[in-house]
Amino acid sequence: MPLTRRELIQNAAVGAAGLAVGGVIGKTVGGGGEEGASTSAGQGAGLSGQASQVADQRKLAPEDVTRALKTFVPPGNVSADEFYIFSSGGHSGQLHVMGVPSLKLYKTIGVFTPESWQGYGYGSDASDPLVKEGTTQGAGRGSILWGDTHHPALSETKGEYDGRWVYINDRANGRIGMVDLRDFKTKQIFDVPNLDSSHGGCFVTQDSEYVHISTMTPTLVDPSKAEGALDRFGDAFRGYSTFLAINPQNGRFDLNRSFQVELPPYTQDLADSGKLVSHGWVFINSYNSEMATGGNQDGKPPIEVGASKGDYDFMHIINWKKAEQLVAAGRTRVQNGMNVIPLDVAASEGVLFLAPEPRSPHGVDVAPNGQYLTVSGKLDPHVTVYGFDKIQAAINAKTFERNDPYGVPILKFDAIVAGQVEVGAGPLHTQYDDKGHGYTSLFVESAVAKWSLGDPYFKGDQAFKLVDKIPVQYNIGHLVAMEGDTTKPQGKYLVALNKWSIDRFATVGTLKPQNFQLVDLTGEKMSLLSDTPIGWAEPHYVQAIRADRLKAWEVYPPGTNALTMEKDPHATELGKERVERRGDTVEVWGTVKRSNFKPDTVVAKKGDRVIMHLTNTETTPDATHGFAIPRYNINCSLDPGEVVTVDFTANEAGAFALYCTEFCSALHLEMQGWLMVTT
Amino acid sequence: MPLTRRELIQNAAVGAAGLAVGGVIGKTVGGGGEEGASTSAGQGAGLSGQASQVADQRKLAPEDVTRALKTFVPPGNVSADEFYIFSSGGHSGQLHVMGVPSLKLYKTIGVFTPESWQGYGYGSDASDPLVKEGTTQGAGRGSILWGDTHHPALSETKGEYDGRWVYINDRANGRIGMVDLRDFKTKQIFDVPNLDSSHGGCFVTQDSEYVHISTMTPTLVDPSKAEGALDRFGDAFRGYSTFLAINPQNGRFDLNRSFQVELPPYTQDLADSGKLVSHGWVFINSYNSEMATGGNQDGKPPIEVGASKGDYDFMHIINWKKAEQLVAAGRTRVQNGMNVIPLDVAASEGVLFLAPEPRSPHGVDVAPNGQYLTVSGKLDPHVTVYGFDKIQAAINAKTFERNDPYGVPILKFDAIVAGQVEVGAGPLHTQYDDKGHGYTSLFVESAVAKWSLGDPYFKGDQAFKLVDKIPVQYNIGHLVAMEGDTTKPQGKYLVALNKWSIDRFATVGTLKPQNFQLVDLTGEKMSLLSDTPIGWAEPHYVQAIRADRLKAWEVYPPGTNALTMEKDPHATELGKERVERRGDTVEVWGTVKRSNFKPDTVVAKKGDRVIMHLTNTETTPDATHGFAIPRYNINCSLDPGEVVTVDFTANEAGAFALYCTEFCSALHLEMQGWLMVTT
Repeated sequence: MPLTRRELIQNAAVGAAGLAVGGVIGKTVGGGGEEGASTSAGQGAGLSGQASQVADQRKLAPEDVTRALKTFVPPGNVSADEFYIFSSGGHSGQLHVMGVPSLKLYKTIGVFTPESWQGYGYGSDASDPLVKEGTTQGAGRGSILWGDTHHPALSETKGEYDGRWVYINDRANGRIGMVDLRDFKTKQIFDVPNLDSSHGGCFVTQDSEYVHISTMTPTLVDPSKAEGALDRFGDAFRGYSTFLAINPQNGRFDLNRSFQVELPPYTQDLADSGKLVSHGWVFINSYNSEMATGGNQDGKPPIEVGASKGDYDFMHIINWKKAEQLVAAGRTRVQNGMNVIPLDVAASEGVLFLAPEPRSPHGVDVAPNGQYLTVSGKLDPHVTVYGFDKIQAAINAKTFERNDPYGVPILKFDAIVAGQVEVGAGPLHTQYDDKGHGYTSLFVESAVAKWSLGDPYFKGDQAFKLVDKIPVQYNIGHLVAMEGDTTKPQGKYLVALNKWSIDRFATVGTLKPQNFQLVDLTGEKMSLLSDTPIGWAEPHYVQAIRADRLKAWEVYPPGTNALTMEKDPHATELGKERVERRGDTVEVWGTVKRSNFKPDTVVAKKGDRVIMHLTNTETTPDATHGFAIPRYNINCSLDPGEVVTVDFTANEAGAFALYCTEFCSALHLEMQGWLMVTT
Repeated sequence: MPLTRRELIQNAAVGAAGLAVGGVIGKTVGGGGEEGASTSAGQGAGLSGQASQVADQRKLAPEDVTRALKTFVPPGNVSADEFYIFSSGGHSGQLHVMGVPSLKLYKTIGVFTPESWQGYGYGSDASDPLVKEGTTQGAGRGSILWGDTHHPALSETKGEYDGRWVYINDRANGRIGMVDLRDFKTKQIFDVPNLDSSHGGCFVTQDSEYVHISTMTPTLVDPSKAEGALDRFGDAFRGYSTFLAINPQNGRFDLNRSFQVELPPYTQDLADSGKLVSHGWVFINSYNSEMATGGNQDGKPPIEVGASKGDYDFMHIINWKKAEQLVAAGRTRVQNGMNVIPLDVAASEGVLFLAPEPRSPHGVDVAPNGQYLTVSGKLDPHVTVYGFDKIQAAINAKTFERNDPYGVPILKFDAIVAGQVEVGAGPLHTQYDDKGHGYTSLFVESAVAKWSLGDPYFKGDQAFKLVDKIPVQYNIGHLVAMEGDTTKPQGKYLVALNKWSIDRFATVGTLKPQNFQLVDLTGEKMSLLSDTPIGWAEPHYVQAIRADRLKAWEVYPPGTNALTMEKDPHATELGKERVERRGDTVEVWGTVKRSNFKPDTVVAKKGDRVIMHLTNTETTPDATHGFAIPRYNINCSLDPGEVVTVDFTANEAGAFALYCTEFCSALHLEMQGWLMVTT
């Protein structure tokens, strides 16, 4: 078993007491603009006239002049940002849309966390059910009103992004959300059964047949038996790989066609789906196959020590085409409403295999042609590249080392490895360009390594070689090359998602921004273009899509319900506004336009149920209106053509000056009305 | 009464039916980079070599090259952003910190809306009380979990920003928040008595004696008498100007020294405080002095029509030094816990005066020397500049036109106006530079006008003249010049806060970003530098501070409670961790560091109260840890040195894999533990 570089692992310091493996040792400076700052002079950059004067005044080094020109997006030029990145917000629970190369933030999309600017989760019928129904398994503190978004997954056709939908998982609570890219709004949140957390997802399969989401920390199968459960961890806990079928018409989850594969209680980590030759397969790496459970207050080893004891962990190899056949053949049990292929069936029927990985890995990334799978063990300085052809051959020839304790065949490491490349300390994740290179983030070293794949990209001596390395600032986690996890990578740019920024920005409080660094991939050597503070989230992973693949709507067709994306039955035309009073209920069909609500006054008795259907009758792009009722925790956003229903109990008496929260017109301030609640 | 340009007002279109005064007529293109785009050629910009090549490849026009060089912030250069802007988030309820000239977003600060990235409002003792206690007057739907932040107010010393605190009002619910700029976190939210909404605030007085916040829509004084209240609006409703005293040590509100001045039920709008010669005075403009209440469904005129009927509205002039004397003399009543100077007392004792303003004004802005007050009536193409000396003289000479129906003296317009400048259609707000210019936003025209003040800045013919105008894209609301509302404006840059972006950015859904446009003020003529999409908020107003005035902390002193900013009594040192069980309560004193929680396992019985005091023992900048319990809606953020307490009922049985939500180290994924809840 060629698991080398034990020294590094020792150095990376798994001390029994309080180990702290921070990627930053002192203040590593490099790759930034510092080196040239002293030689600033406009002329040095090939400037004259006004440009030279400005560069001199602002003390721009020659390389900063080039950086400025490579990243500037001229005002009003809508196509200068060639790519858009969809960035998870980490524990902000949102999804963020930024442009490349500008790295400007175009939009924050509310997914798991209520977002009042969009009126998301503040009383509208289009968002409140999502926020509530997405938490059906929530503990008794009420709804779960945040998420830890990790892996955005853009929908694909033939392995290329098609710009229709994006999915994102909640690592904290085992949920998944679906966003429609016609209006950039969340349409579905699903609390995935049997998952209390998630990490191995989400990724869509090559033709968006499924979106995949699997457990991170294994689930206690019977939550009523928590007593002593950690002592019988291997029996009491399980992992689950979930294939959520996607409705090809509207991108929503089709639960009837969805299923899970039961997994051993290792901590399943990141996943990726096969493509082209490996289409039909999904790969999940794992760590803590030692099944350490901690107990440091009782003198037991801390989890980070226990979980680093073994020499290897396992990549999980799942044949989902085969799994589909088992589901069709009824080889499943129903567990909490989900069709589950039991672990023993998956192991014995050729659905699930394991492959040894350098220990504590943190990524498995399928190359554009589907042939190579790159795994980085963060305590091993190599990337290990598996050949899908070799994996197939080993499976067919049953080249197994042994079975794991759950009966899952473990493939022979030597039989399936295509190559290894020594890239540096703490490799995590890999992306690809259009020329056969892998780009791997190095957390401990704070760098990105560029290396070459094997045949057909590079042959002989040129294959599996380190080509270049660039320092980043600091502690890089994921990274993204443009469309770098599709069958058609675009190269050109890479964004390094650095967890720490330390000395890169002025101090804006004790909670520091992350740092997105834009790297130029057009040359043989990588070069840094810009730093961007991310002070609103802890982005985990990002996908980057070519701007021209997005075809969003400017306005809704008149009278649209944003949740169903269909005509709302309560859509109201101008002049057809009405109020109905039935017993204790006041129901209003109103219109909203510049510069008034009609009706502008709603009278209710204290305790009445008030239902208001509001139609924004505007057809002009950008003519969004808000609808807020002070003191009632209600704020809706109505885009042109949109219909929103709010339904509440008028449980406080008084005069409440409802108003438009979007500055819509010169008479916006007068776009106001009254909810009068009498006693 | 020289209220001119009735034509414009007619054109601006107050039609009885469905008037729509959008500032954009067709697609106004101008001021952008478009005009030069066709002549792109690196050489044209004075470039050669690589810079020229890049400019050509990216089709940058000569002016775009200059723009790029004027706005680029080199990676790693922490001082290249010379200014920071504190931007309200509008109905996102937050405060946003951006750099100038980069316009990059450095941080989102949670104020009124929970913010899970910061662990703000998700279980920590430092934030949950704020989110809850800030809504004591909330209606029965539970806490108010959003706000409509409008006017950030940086603390001042001698009329200059001192970088210590920032205040921000909630327009929707009449509240105010206070943020400490040592750690950029909210420390106080106050639900201001007698305010159901707010607009005229917040602004601090010259030496941060008070922060001012006043009603927007007037308050129904007795909320139990809503029946028919709109028909007796003038009697039943009142406005309130609030002076919240600031504790000079810690910036918090000192309620014992705070007071309100009762106002007529006009809709009080924006306020500003006097400075230097006008120190001791506050000015609030107003609209809807007609007291229109709408009723459009019953055939009455819509509010926007009723509120535009009169020929003028009123600037409110408040002598708060005099008001302090009345408070000291006991000339107040206590109303909902607040000392209130009654309207008749304020009117008769020289505390409150009114000045006619061109109708439906939307700003009053005091010039750097305190002598001039600029008001823009959005239905009048002029700015009207009042002289503070003239106001003083008129008050002393009792040059009153008459009293309003509430007995408040109305000063004679002609006696107090220093000048008027015709600036264009739909003027709203004014900022100042260091050379005696005013910059006024023109909403209807989508432009910024630059004009000259009078003596001592400009004299004779040169005073009160339009100097320059630049188109902006589109529908500008507020604008900010660097430190442009202080006694020491910095000039240099201006940011136009445009409400609509329409065709300026690629479409990212039906809800479009706002557009912040950076304008260069260094020349006689203004020039556009960049567009920045704001897709996470509807920023209302912004203040800009010189970067070197901010002195934030890198880390907390060990064991700090972020709410009190003092040593936390539960701070725990490494090795001193402990667990106490008392009856149904489990109390934990734990530590948090790379890469573990100690203890890492907490066992409770279902129904137990669990109290966890967690101390981040790190002293390294950026070594923030998170603490999340899946399914329990708990997520805390612990910066280096910070102590957080969570207190919850273990009301769901099972195994919950608590974990660190900040990617803190190479072994971050292993920084995990277990909450075991047994039955």
